[in-house]
Amino acid sequence: MKKIVLLLLLVATQGFSQTDDEKQIKAIYDAALTKGKAYDWLNHLSNQIGGRLSGSIQAQQAVDYTKSEMDSMSLDRVWLQPVMVPKWVRGIPEFAYIEYQPGITSNVPICALGGSVATPSGGIKANLIEVKGIDELAALGRAKIEGKIVFFNRPMEPTLISTFQAYSGCVDQRYSGAEEAGKYGAVGVIVRSMNLRLDNFPHTGSMGYGDTAVYNRIPAAAISTNGAELLSTTLKLNPNIKFYFKQNCKQFDDVESYNVIGEIKGSVYPNEIMVVGGHLDSWDLGDGSHDDGAGCVQSMDVLRLLKESGYKPKRTIRVVLFMNEENGLRGGNEYAEVAKNKNEKHVFALESDSGGFTPRGFSFDCSDANLERVTSWKKLFEPYLVHLFIKGYSGADIGPLKNDDIVLAGLLPDSQRYFDHHHAENDTFEHINKRELELGAASMASLVYLFDKYGIVK
Amino acid sequence: MKKIVLLLLLVATQGFSQTDDEKQIKAIYDAALTKGKAYDWLNHLSNQIGGRLSGSIQAQQAVDYTKSEMDSMSLDRVWLQPVMVPKWVRGIPEFAYIEYQPGITSNVPICALGGSVATPSGGIKANLIEVKGIDELAALGRAKIEGKIVFFNRPMEPTLISTFQAYSGCVDQRYSGAEEAGKYGAVGVIVRSMNLRLDNFPHTGSMGYGDTAVYNRIPAAAISTNGAELLSTTLKLNPNIKFYFKQNCKQFDDVESYNVIGEIKGSVYPNEIMVVGGHLDSWDLGDGSHDDGAGCVQSMDVLRLLKESGYKPKRTIRVVLFMNEENGLRGGNEYAEVAKNKNEKHVFALESDSGGFTPRGFSFDCSDANLERVTSWKKLFEPYLVHLFIKGYSGADIGPLKNDDIVLAGLLPDSQRYFDHHHAENDTFEHINKRELELGAASMASLVYLFDKYGIVK
Repeated sequence: MKKIVLLLLLVATQGFSQTDDEKQIKAIYDAALTKGKAYDWLNHLSNQIGGRLSGSIQAQQAVDYTKSEMDSMSLDRVWLQPVMVPKWVRGIPEFAYIEYQPGITSNVPICALGGSVATPSGGIKANLIEVKGIDELAALGRAKIEGKIVFFNRPMEPTLISTFQAYSGCVDQRYSGAEEAGKYGAVGVIVRSMNLRLDNFPHTGSMGYGDTAVYNRIPAAAISTNGAELLSTTLKLNPNIKFYFKQNCKQFDDVESYNVIGEIKGSVYPNEIMVVGGHLDSWDLGDGSHDDGAGCVQSMDVLRLLKESGYKPKRTIRVVLFMNEENGLRGGNEYAEVAKNKNEKHVFALESDSGGFTPRGFSFDCSDANLERVTSWKKLFEPYLVHLFIKGYSGADIGPLKNDDIVLAGLLPDSQRYFDHHHAENDTFEHINKRELELGAASMASLVYLFDKYGIVK
Repeated sequence: MKKIVLLLLLVATQGFSQTDDEKQIKAIYDAALTKGKAYDWLNHLSNQIGGRLSGSIQAQQAVDYTKSEMDSMSLDRVWLQPVMVPKWVRGIPEFAYIEYQPGITSNVPICALGGSVATPSGGIKANLIEVKGIDELAALGRAKIEGKIVFFNRPMEPTLISTFQAYSGCVDQRYSGAEEAGKYGAVGVIVRSMNLRLDNFPHTGSMGYGDTAVYNRIPAAAISTNGAELLSTTLKLNPNIKFYFKQNCKQFDDVESYNVIGEIKGSVYPNEIMVVGGHLDSWDLGDGSHDDGAGCVQSMDVLRLLKESGYKPKRTIRVVLFMNEENGLRGGNEYAEVAKNKNEKHVFALESDSGGFTPRGFSFDCSDANLERVTSWKKLFEPYLVHLFIKGYSGADIGPLKNDDIVLAGLLPDSQRYFDHHHAENDTFEHINKRELELGAASMASLVYLFDKYGIVK
């Protein structure tokens, strides 16, 4: 009988608690949709500052601006965490054309990949060889590649519903194409932009040369998807066409920059730290609104929304705006390194770095027990149409915090439009919808609230 | 023992059938994302034809174009169903300003509501009275309203996650504001645009005068949300400001137009008809890409996708492009009337009229038994992130087909951006994402496939 009473009490408590959670989460969403600040902050980051490539003046302005905004949020502590970052500069705009025969040419839109070397000052003109991937290089061999520009033209797979999956299936061409083609004597690399849409925007992004000696590095550029289609068709009609491109990008010495950090001290477990963050740097072509201004302002608003909705965190909640995700991950690595050296106990980290679109759910990189717990909260998100709770990769910047005990999570916004804008000139503020951005911030704040309240399963 | 074997067989059969369905649906999505025609068709409708208000030349061009496209699809039958539609014309662009004092004015963006009468040729200038809704009129009474322009300024509720719900909570101001304010002697009506965003686009939409005598009808216009904010603030500072507006819209006699219909004859139950459709007319300010060019081209592609994916329908599947949803619903009513007169048996109808955004699910207006069946198919849509299967209103054009036996369904795309564009100048093709449009078409074709294969529960 006692047992039954206890059980009833338990049920009643859980029932009540459930209602409390529903109310709290509703308060968070209401605050986001009526008093959210994310959109205003992003307007400033995008339209008053603009593209924030690591080491640039704009990156520093973004550090100063977000620090000063956090200073005005009455947090318990706001600080800058120094980190040395690479400084790569695009220089004068790139230029390229297809030469059908001497004097008969078509210009095509290209942009240097981030980290690429420049062409010689007069540019490079050479025949092309088109491949669908790195694995074709060995079969072709040096005889067919030497002295040529390798054109990597494997499109993103359109039948994959997650465009991030389609991106993962292609991005090796961009990252390692130049390193690999250089081994066979190629003089340059042109890569089809990572974009599912046919348009005229070239999309930049990071690339690396591995251990290729500096003097053996060949320049690499992205071509717009329309340009790639034109180039491929033209090559089929006449394999002897030439391609010309010129870029004068340059790698400088590392410079000092900062992660921007603000925190609310936990009222019960101040030594258990929960992180929510995005990356403050962006590529230089657009203004970095989706990648990842959105994630930064959403993360900042998580702290505000918890306050606005009347919640007092038990654990220490930190917003971290990571520097240099795009071409180095120095900020993410530094943050984890400092945390380790200070013996800080991180129990949870949530990253938003997939655009400011309608939130669909979260991915979790954690133990099965924690996945089970978070799945039990799914119902709380149903009214907000947040329905995807999956196991998976949760983000680059929080990755270095990974250990057996922490719960890593990533916001999953609708992904269909993301690669239309990613790393391109059209990643700009007018492509942000205020409500979508705010719904993302509210979803993040709600998840942080639940993990703060119930803790993680050890 | 026998029973167990039977059960096992049943499970095995269902298992096999499930796999078949998964394969078929995958084939439909693959076809949509690699060979879909919806985007090309919409490009033509939007950019070669443009806004297609009932009775306009563009509406007729859209009839001709979609009929000719259907003619080329090797369907079993394509025809035009005549229907008389209202013809309302906006005339020269509307003009409005706030007059702070004689000679000191600010222009504000307005547009006539569809069906409104014109102002006198010199326009109307009068004091304003702001209300949040029709219910405030009675309390104010004739004394405070007579001779004034009534300014309906209740915003859409931002905390509602479904923007359609927020729209429903506001649209009475637009539809009935002029009829109701006229009863108290108002000389005109200005309505805040049905838009959750603050911007400069006025949003038109239908309105009616009920049984108000023609000579007692007062003109009504929508003001952009920014304009509404300015007007409201200004009124608070100075209740004596005047508002001027001028519009010369006109209602003409009804003209003949058409529903455009194409069908594939059912191979097993040719007399059971399934409809899939959208509306071909649109408002005149934009090009009607989201409302409802998207629904038309998706519906047309449903028939193609079923063919492309190798499926032969058992039932007769009809695409119907309804005319005059926006300001009369004549096409929807006529289609249902003809069907009734011909004793046609409609078992299912699916409408897409909520924009071309990422599909999130479907609403169903049907018996509980059918809702239960369709809910059992939810798992099949999971890989495509289509997760919402709810009971609810399914669309205006298929509404007249409603009876106890039919299943009515409506596509539910993500709704966050819809009212940024709805009935406004910026409902244009560049705001359509090709993949989102195609995913919608694939979701529709998959639902049609399942209902065709398994039938409805009687």
